[in-house]
Amino acid sequence: MDFQHMCPRFEQVMALLGKRWTGLILRALMEGPRRFTEIKNYVEGLSDRLLSERLQELEEAGIVERRVFAQRPVVVEYALTSKGQDFRGVLEALQAWADKWVAIEDLEAAEAKTT
Amino acid sequence: MDFQHMCPRFEQVMALLGKRWTGLILRALMEGPRRFTEIKNYVEGLSDRLLSERLQELEEAGIVERRVFAQRPVVVEYALTSKGQDFRGVLEALQAWADKWVAIEDLEAAEAKTT
Repeated sequence: MDFQHMCPRFEQVMALLGKRWTGLILRALMEGPRRFTEIKNYVEGLSDRLLSERLQELEEAGIVERRVFAQRPVVVEYALTSKGQDFRGVLEALQAWADKWVAIEDLEAAEAKTT
Repeated sequence: MDFQHMCPRFEQVMALLGKRWTGLILRALMEGPRRFTEIKNYVEGLSDRLLSERLQELEEAGIVERRVFAQRPVVVEYALTSKGQDFRGVLEALQAWADKWVAIEDLEAAEAKTT
């Protein structure tokens, strides 16, 4: 694969993934549908407002599907479409990179910065 | 690979890549070192200020290396370290996803939105 020139399709993906929280939300949904609160618990530090915003962007991009179950109380869950599930390859590549290159010291340094 | 639970290493990678422009800057450097202006030309819409900021973040993360050649005029170029070059797998996964899922209509819609 040659990265000599920019590719508009690649730019499109990065317009999504190059936003805070999006990658973590996709990870939260990778093993199956979750409710809003479950995603929020999975992604530490994410506010209600930003989670709603990101989910809507992912819905508009055809990556996430909002499912409403008409029972009492109404249950809403978020699931990846096939387009979204196909992100698994990207997440696996990211995890492989992280496992290889992110050192424990980096995590401690990041922790120290935020506290 | 199991994504049932969040991973702090993964969070670290997304703290970098989940920022606007970073993915595109990594792509710009993937085939070899480039000068500041060359990166800017590669990544359409990126300002000087944000490119400097992102490059500094990537330097601090040990992903990009700034090389200064002491000649007249002085030449400065940016190159990926081995840690940075190892991002190739991630970029390839992103490109594969984009090639499969980003439709021409999406690009036209995105274009229409920004103009």
